Amino acid sequence: MGNIGTGLYKILQMNREKVENLLGRNVEIRKVLVRNLNKNRKIDIGKELLTTKVEDIIDDPEIDIVVELIGGINPAVDYIKRSIEKGKHVVTANKAVIATYGKELRNLADEKGVQLKYEASVAGGIPIIDTLINSLSSNDVEEIIGIINGTTNYILTQMSHSNISFENALKKAQEKGYAEADPTSDVEGYDAAFKLTILSAVAFGETISPDDISREGITKVCQEDIKYASKLDYNVKLLASAKKYNNSLELHVHPALIPKKHPLASVDNEFNALFVRGNAVGELMFYGKGAGSLPTGSAVLADIITIGKTNKMEQISDKVITNNDLKINGQGIGQYYVRLKVIDKPGVLGKIATTFGEYRISLDSVVQIGRDEKIVPLVFITHEIEKLKLDKALEVIREFSVVKEVSSILKVENL
Amino acid sequence: MGNIGTGLYKILQMNREKVENLLGRNVEIRKVLVRNLNKNRKIDIGKELLTTKVEDIIDDPEIDIVVELIGGINPAVDYIKRSIEKGKHVVTANKAVIATYGKELRNLADEKGVQLKYEASVAGGIPIIDTLINSLSSNDVEEIIGIINGTTNYILTQMSHSNISFENALKKAQEKGYAEADPTSDVEGYDAAFKLTILSAVAFGETISPDDISREGITKVCQEDIKYASKLDYNVKLLASAKKYNNSLELHVHPALIPKKHPLASVDNEFNALFVRGNAVGELMFYGKGAGSLPTGSAVLADIITIGKTNKMEQISDKVITNNDLKINGQGIGQYYVRLKVIDKPGVLGKIATTFGEYRISLDSVVQIGRDEKIVPLVFITHEIEKLKLDKALEVIREFSVVKEVSSILKVENL
Repeated sequence: MGNIGTGLYKILQMNREKVENLLGRNVEIRKVLVRNLNKNRKIDIGKELLTTKVEDIIDDPEIDIVVELIGGINPAVDYIKRSIEKGKHVVTANKAVIATYGKELRNLADEKGVQLKYEASVAGGIPIIDTLINSLSSNDVEEIIGIINGTTNYILTQMSHSNISFENALKKAQEKGYAEADPTSDVEGYDAAFKLTILSAVAFGETISPDDISREGITKVCQEDIKYASKLDYNVKLLASAKKYNNSLELHVHPALIPKKHPLASVDNEFNALFVRGNAVGELMFYGKGAGSLPTGSAVLADIITIGKTNKMEQISDKVITNNDLKINGQGIGQYYVRLKVIDKPGVLGKIATTFGEYRISLDSVVQIGRDEKIVPLVFITHEIEKLKLDKALEVIREFSVVKEVSSILKVENL
Repeated sequence: MGNIGTGLYKILQMNREKVENLLGRNVEIRKVLVRNLNKNRKIDIGKELLTTKVEDIIDDPEIDIVVELIGGINPAVDYIKRSIEKGKHVVTANKAVIATYGKELRNLADEKGVQLKYEASVAGGIPIIDTLINSLSSNDVEEIIGIINGTTNYILTQMSHSNISFENALKKAQEKGYAEADPTSDVEGYDAAFKLTILSAVAFGETISPDDISREGITKVCQEDIKYASKLDYNVKLLASAKKYNNSLELHVHPALIPKKHPLASVDNEFNALFVRGNAVGELMFYGKGAGSLPTGSAVLADIITIGKTNKMEQISDKVITNNDLKINGQGIGQYYVRLKVIDKPGVLGKIATTFGEYRISLDSVVQIGRDEKIVPLVFITHEIEKLKLDKALEVIREFSVVKEVSSILKVENL
């Protein structure tokens, strides 16, 4: 009965008539597990529904569906397992549990002939899990690029539009309730990595540990990078991306540049979006609210309705094909944005560009701003290159006496 | 075995392994109805699969699913009915048939215990039908605004980006294969009205005749409107919109202005997009290719897979709740863009603005361009008003001797 649980309860009140018409049966909340029976709640819920004992739910044979909206791995994963073992369908919004134990729980659900649904675990109200499992089952998915963390997207949008620092944007996000007191999970990309793990399992059949995803947060993104990116017609976003190259899967969570004219670039503030490329359907994008009690509750209720619509023994619609042949690969091929601080004197640009050339790194654009100061920024965008070569070239460039700093290296997604 | 049929055949070749793994059974094409057995085809298909007799399909008890990709109402609707009557599931991409006979066919399919699926009939590869029926079943849908005709979107994009006339943009669209030799159905909005009918049935449970939708095409949209809209930070798009107000449903197909910063505004060229607002999930947008043999074939194959996954007698997942309580309403409340041609002399703006005021039409912005010419354009954007009042005010304004022409009236969607 936290944020999402309360949202689910409200939506069921708002849309009960439609839902029951659709299902041809009643949807009844039988028990709600809470920590404190006497807490004042924002909604009017009968005291007799509340319990502090999980057994009142798990052991009640009249309960068909258990909805887990606790969050965090423990005790949620234990409650989910025990519910499945008792033959109950489970709906959850828990990204940590599904990212870490998804395969095991899916197998257990299959074995017990029940459904395990987790639409709300990624991108809140955007129906990306069902879309990948059902509507895109006809495609070989080649690429997914998502803005799937609303907190960091809000911060980057504020840094860009209101011209404020990361620290001030974070403070604003915390005031608005978009960021938690300890923002680590969001700003360091852990939250996005959990979600990318779930998306990869569903889209590519690949079980990846979130720890194996190359991950970089947004704490190092500064005003300067956002400004230079904008001059070059790019916006900076925290992207979670999964791309198939032949038989390898490249996974990243990192701040990256997207061309302003691409629909992903105008996904602002707390909104989320997912860009998907399939070998038949081509490019698709899905946009909406990735968090919040009503959007997330909407996804949870849709899962409940789907279970209500299908006979449990006949349902194989959420089968995730397992594919362990793909190699996981965190090393990038792509375009990169590089910002240096250099001493402004003749020949510097030539010297650096020559070094890039020696490593076969060709350049898409170069911007040098603020002439006649002693130390100036120098910004490059490369053509498609191997990240390893860029790293090697930058090792050399970093040692030049005229180079004061390699300030930033960001991926460019020229979609 | 036309454009979409060929696409479906190709996708099945490309992705057969994945599809059969998912279904745990083979997918076999048993017969293909063609007009001409000896035509040279772009794909390598065994001659023994082809037939010119529809009975070879409808009367074959081994065929489980009939895929109708003929287009047009006759004979497609007859083939679909006869297939359902023989207990076969039907998948179709036929918007004319579903818009006109959808309710009747859905009822027939329910009665016979088979599935009728038509994801490909609206917005090609974008999975909007399944999303509305399943993922958004937890919501009361309040509004749908779509760019669902690729031909007109291509034309308007070209007019806007390449600064060419409607006629030249249409010619370019025809050369690229985006527009037909007779472009009436697209440019006059008939195609979008068919699709809006289908979306309304699925989202609102309301059966509407396409003829009852207020419809305006893009043939009257000119360079000038696109230019002035752009100055005011709007793009012009052909929108299909359905909006619920209390107990009435307002439906339109018309060219309209959208704020440039809204994600719908950057949907360019042949791409489609649907913006949906639900009472729980809030705003969602879905973007992708609305036509083409592979994207549309992708949607057809997804429908086939869904049927393959579910036991036919248990399946009620595509139930469309019927709702005949909503009144259909074509009269708008909203913001409007009005362009006049007036003689440029002092007091003209005052006189017109006063008249708007008398009809309680308040103005959001006014642009007057090209001073010191004899006849100048005058562009207004109103605040939210009743269209009827605007029409009355313009009747008066039209009679002023200084007003040479009421050149355009366009809806503004300030999403």
